[in-house]
Amino acid sequence: MKAYIKLLLLIALNSSLMAQKTHPNLVLTYNDAVQITNSLGSVPLMDKSIDEAVKFVENALNNPMDVPLPKDAGGGYTHERHKQNYNEMYTAGILYKLTGEEKYALFIKTMLDKYALFYPTLSTHPEGKRQTPGKLFWQSLNETVWLLHTIQAYDCIYNWLGDEDKAKYETRIFVPMADFFINECTHEFDLIHNHGTWIVAAVGMTGYVIGREDYVKKALYGSKMTGESGFLAQLDKLFSPDGYYTEGGYYVRYALWPFFIFAEVIHNNQKDLKIYEYRNQILKKALYSALQVTYTNGEFIPINDALKEKTWLSEELVYATNFVYAHYEHDRQLLSIIKLHDKVSLSGPGLMAAKDLMKDEPIPNFKWQSVQFTDGPEGDMGGVGILRYGSVEDQETLLMKYGSHGLSHGHFDKLTFTFYDQGREIVQDYGAARFLNVVQKFGGRYLDENDSYAKQTVAHNTLVVDEQSQFEGNRRRSEEHHADSYCFNAEDINFQYVSAKENNSYKGVSQHRTMVLVNDEKLYRPAIIDVFRITSETEHQYDLPFYYLGHFIYSNFEYEPFTSARSLMGKNNGYEHLWKEAVGIPGKCSELTWLNGERFYSIISNTEAGDQVYFTRIGGSDPSFNLRNDPGFIIRKKAANTIFVSILEPHGVFDPTLEFTKDSYSTFKEVKVIHNNDNYTIISIEGSKNINWILMISNQDSDKSSSHKVKIAGTDYTWSGPISIIKQ
Amino acid sequence: MKAYIKLLLLIALNSSLMAQKTHPNLVLTYNDAVQITNSLGSVPLMDKSIDEAVKFVENALNNPMDVPLPKDAGGGYTHERHKQNYNEMYTAGILYKLTGEEKYALFIKTMLDKYALFYPTLSTHPEGKRQTPGKLFWQSLNETVWLLHTIQAYDCIYNWLGDEDKAKYETRIFVPMADFFINECTHEFDLIHNHGTWIVAAVGMTGYVIGREDYVKKALYGSKMTGESGFLAQLDKLFSPDGYYTEGGYYVRYALWPFFIFAEVIHNNQKDLKIYEYRNQILKKALYSALQVTYTNGEFIPINDALKEKTWLSEELVYATNFVYAHYEHDRQLLSIIKLHDKVSLSGPGLMAAKDLMKDEPIPNFKWQSVQFTDGPEGDMGGVGILRYGSVEDQETLLMKYGSHGLSHGHFDKLTFTFYDQGREIVQDYGAARFLNVVQKFGGRYLDENDSYAKQTVAHNTLVVDEQSQFEGNRRRSEEHHADSYCFNAEDINFQYVSAKENNSYKGVSQHRTMVLVNDEKLYRPAIIDVFRITSETEHQYDLPFYYLGHFIYSNFEYEPFTSARSLMGKNNGYEHLWKEAVGIPGKCSELTWLNGERFYSIISNTEAGDQVYFTRIGGSDPSFNLRNDPGFIIRKKAANTIFVSILEPHGVFDPTLEFTKDSYSTFKEVKVIHNNDNYTIISIEGSKNINWILMISNQDSDKSSSHKVKIAGTDYTWSGPISIIKQ
Repeated sequence: MKAYIKLLLLIALNSSLMAQKTHPNLVLTYNDAVQITNSLGSVPLMDKSIDEAVKFVENALNNPMDVPLPKDAGGGYTHERHKQNYNEMYTAGILYKLTGEEKYALFIKTMLDKYALFYPTLSTHPEGKRQTPGKLFWQSLNETVWLLHTIQAYDCIYNWLGDEDKAKYETRIFVPMADFFINECTHEFDLIHNHGTWIVAAVGMTGYVIGREDYVKKALYGSKMTGESGFLAQLDKLFSPDGYYTEGGYYVRYALWPFFIFAEVIHNNQKDLKIYEYRNQILKKALYSALQVTYTNGEFIPINDALKEKTWLSEELVYATNFVYAHYEHDRQLLSIIKLHDKVSLSGPGLMAAKDLMKDEPIPNFKWQSVQFTDGPEGDMGGVGILRYGSVEDQETLLMKYGSHGLSHGHFDKLTFTFYDQGREIVQDYGAARFLNVVQKFGGRYLDENDSYAKQTVAHNTLVVDEQSQFEGNRRRSEEHHADSYCFNAEDINFQYVSAKENNSYKGVSQHRTMVLVNDEKLYRPAIIDVFRITSETEHQYDLPFYYLGHFIYSNFEYEPFTSARSLMGKNNGYEHLWKEAVGIPGKCSELTWLNGERFYSIISNTEAGDQVYFTRIGGSDPSFNLRNDPGFIIRKKAANTIFVSILEPHGVFDPTLEFTKDSYSTFKEVKVIHNNDNYTIISIEGSKNINWILMISNQDSDKSSSHKVKIAGTDYTWSGPISIIKQ
Repeated sequence: MKAYIKLLLLIALNSSLMAQKTHPNLVLTYNDAVQITNSLGSVPLMDKSIDEAVKFVENALNNPMDVPLPKDAGGGYTHERHKQNYNEMYTAGILYKLTGEEKYALFIKTMLDKYALFYPTLSTHPEGKRQTPGKLFWQSLNETVWLLHTIQAYDCIYNWLGDEDKAKYETRIFVPMADFFINECTHEFDLIHNHGTWIVAAVGMTGYVIGREDYVKKALYGSKMTGESGFLAQLDKLFSPDGYYTEGGYYVRYALWPFFIFAEVIHNNQKDLKIYEYRNQILKKALYSALQVTYTNGEFIPINDALKEKTWLSEELVYATNFVYAHYEHDRQLLSIIKLHDKVSLSGPGLMAAKDLMKDEPIPNFKWQSVQFTDGPEGDMGGVGILRYGSVEDQETLLMKYGSHGLSHGHFDKLTFTFYDQGREIVQDYGAARFLNVVQKFGGRYLDENDSYAKQTVAHNTLVVDEQSQFEGNRRRSEEHHADSYCFNAEDINFQYVSAKENNSYKGVSQHRTMVLVNDEKLYRPAIIDVFRITSETEHQYDLPFYYLGHFIYSNFEYEPFTSARSLMGKNNGYEHLWKEAVGIPGKCSELTWLNGERFYSIISNTEAGDQVYFTRIGGSDPSFNLRNDPGFIIRKKAANTIFVSILEPHGVFDPTLEFTKDSYSTFKEVKVIHNNDNYTIISIEGSKNINWILMISNQDSDKSSSHKVKIAGTDYTWSGPISIIKQ
């Protein structure tokens, strides 16, 4: 079917392409520019957005222009300057169209003249080390972003320029740059990856403006125009059917930028392609799934390489929210985010959103939901499950990851989880080891410790077997596999669960993790019950880390603290980055409590004789002090088959303002496995306030309507569905 | 003079005392209660405050009452329960007066009956270890707070109670408790300390209600009624003439509570004492100086033992702000804070503030200022200097401390500083090692590490000589001395300075620290120049720590990092709590940069061959993991006379949202001492953007009008006043 659709699209393309005679007609169209100009002074948020643009460009006009020869890597002067330059040209182009003031056009022409002078003479960038190098920038990625912006500036002043200038810029800049991307960065160009989207968007937009049909076709269908790569293939392969982006929440933010920019350009140039309808409105689903993979503070839950500072306030989402708002159902939830952005894109959809914000109608907040997203183009490569409870002001959120590897930014972290509460991370994912654009930190690139620590399995809240990372840290092998969703259910807000299996990351070891959110009137907040079953025919060392954030308060077991000398947890696979702070010998049920903000958190686990609990701190083997020195603890068991059962409980109150502390001990006292085989796992949980629960899991049959019955020591346990709880 | 005033007061006292026939007449008076009742429904903030009180007490009425036998320390059940009980009685008492509903009175009576049952049988609290024990509580302090609240509840239902009950409560609770305080906690009762204020307030209020003139007199003039101790002596001795409280900002918050409660009670019972006028309106000055010792986020700058979570939103300041608002000039700045409290005290002044918030007049924000406060009752024991620059949203604030020891909560930290920017701490003071009311952490008391680390000199941003703390860590010796203000000037907002000397904390070593805030158009933000002169006749090891907060980015010198094994910085005086992370051999000018939030910070210092720079992390010798694992670095010099010159510069931008980084290197390149003797210090400072400054300090003559002239290598340097700068 897909091939058929693509054929139809190809026909449509041939009939409509190169109809563009109007300029500009990329993101900003001529008609929209007229509309925006006519609205001046009457639409506050558009006015504000234009004012900011004017201030930005006026500052450029009042300062010396510089188009330096490329020299520095990310964060360095020439790098930042070329970024500044494309932003200035892009913004000046729009202002020229909106105001008609020639100074803006002249500014772009002057700058393009400088680029035209040396661009054809450049070889690849001197700092282009690890990444695919560009010519202006150390990585071609930045160069595609340069083109994507600059071609819009050029489009805006196209009709104002003389033919000679146009010929100069096209022959000395745009064509050579586009050809460089297609012919010398072919691997990137045909990549099913966000870098591929940037590059095809830039080339395709160039094609529309300068009338190069081949650029547009290659952008849409790949350098060989087979449809195996290019923009449509990216839309097919990078998103699951429900819009989840395989690289995860952090990168989708970045990827949505070129996806939406180019979609809008296609929409404006080839309406009959119906790009916003493509693949059952995949672009709309992509935005909503990206928004759902944030916590209530707007931060993207850090999956894979992710900088935690990034929120949905990022510039990239200004376009995506505006365009989805305009091209689908005018969902007023999106207006609540646009309001937070406090700016709109200088485009037709931006104008519509700004106008609709003026209506005297309520603007509902964005609704975060408990939801499962599938991964993989067919939706059959595992996914992520998100359980949520509570108001936006103070929401418990748990994300469990069980999808595919996630391309080059993927981590070896199948079955990991992160947990949020009180508006922040409580059990964290490290994210990426990188200081974006900070020259002193390896030029702002990913740091060595990103590979040696952040990507390794032990950096995550998931099982490590024999101190090895999943798939022995081999990305190719990891990409051949994915974990599998076992079941997900959030229908009952007081009893939600997510469960997944993973059988490939460690040879001969099967993993099955189930995380259950249980609310109960005896608790302050819902607790998470974490049941991690491991089966193997041979004995292994199993480590389960928990990277808690906050201050250690208490453990119910003795430990030996290393108070005057410290050593490392290991030599490889990320263990060399962990300081060993203490080693504990837990009793039959271990409890560890920490304080974060105004609440206590405890993890109570089914430890037994022979288990160990290590207290760790990130930061070993780190000569440049690149890592954050965050705490964690690791429960270690040696066994063939085993099961880690842990209850994560937020509890009590620590109120320094009212000098008030309550319930700093966990409610839970004992967690016990009373049955565990391939078919069924039954857990008993006891706590104060007469808590006496039985959690029952069917391990092979996840059918909602199946009934189960297990007899243990004369007691019958019966339930239906994969997971159930009895509160006695 | 003071003796004379006290004599007059004593006469006034005798004539007016025991006039109280009306009940209630402590903080809430009968007349004010009538006023509040009449206002119901028309004064929103008072209504809200009452609603909260009603909810609180209704919850108590609907749940089982418990008056347990004392057992637990701070944070434990019986401790928290008795706290809950006095709050419930206190609030119920007020509600009884406001509503006339008997259920409230009955609730108090029932609870008092339970206390009356066992209070006379109690001996001192089983957990009363380090602190002076009470009977209901592990420290008598909590017990005085119990009495201070409960006597108000009793006052509110006084007229409703039968004589027999009154006799019972007085003979079985109030009199024995007050007598216990006077006779068995005499040391505390006569203490010039906030604990002393709580105890005299509780006893004095009891005296007013039950007509025990001796209690009131002892409360005002001490257990021996000589005036050497008691409330008035506390007002004389705990505050400097400008209202600065000798224990510092954190404790003044707590101390202001009983000071204002008792002041209000005295005001209501003995108007002729003119307590709010006492000592040139010292109570008013006390509040304003407390408010000035906060940062713009409302947090008290942590001097001495201080928990950083405390802000001016603390309950204690609800009373103080209300009463100062009502009894002085109705300063509408205070209303801005009361608005943030979002509640008022249930009292006459609370009603006035709530009403005035309704007026259609602007409410100006509180104005933080650059200011120096003197320390000591006569204002001659040094003090603290605060330099500020910038808006409330993003203010640089530097506090330097050079006062007296600060009683039992004092730290050995003379000449230390803390620095804030971006709404948070950037160079921190550790504060106290304590988890308030957290049972698992030594019952919520001060932890061992508070003495062994937090109080020690090396825990602060000030000089450590020979790895010893100031005064060898001996509090008695420290209390005999104080540092001295040398000069303070904030008239020119672009060139502010504070300078102080300290000659007693290390035998034979004289210290003179000058901190200058310099603003310049070439800088992003004002820089701090820190000139720390040390003179001695013998050679010493001089360590100057900087506890920066943020992530280490860069140093311009080579260092040896301890990547696989770590050891401690020393064995004693707090050094045993510092991990040695690296040791650096700096060149003639060392630079160290870190990132905090969206800004970079660098410290550039005049190091030279032979100096060392240690990278440290707090957390060694800490078997219970009580300390925060925060970073720092220590510059070490070995010399007799020496000088540390450091520039602390906030610079650049790290904007992850816009993916934009700028100026991550410091503007400053070189700092050089070109002259330094007992009379003059001259520093040359060079940086990019043609920065070429000369800072000149007169070390002996701080007269503003003096002129100075120094000839060095043929160049004349002339200036007037103690400190000046030439920008070339």
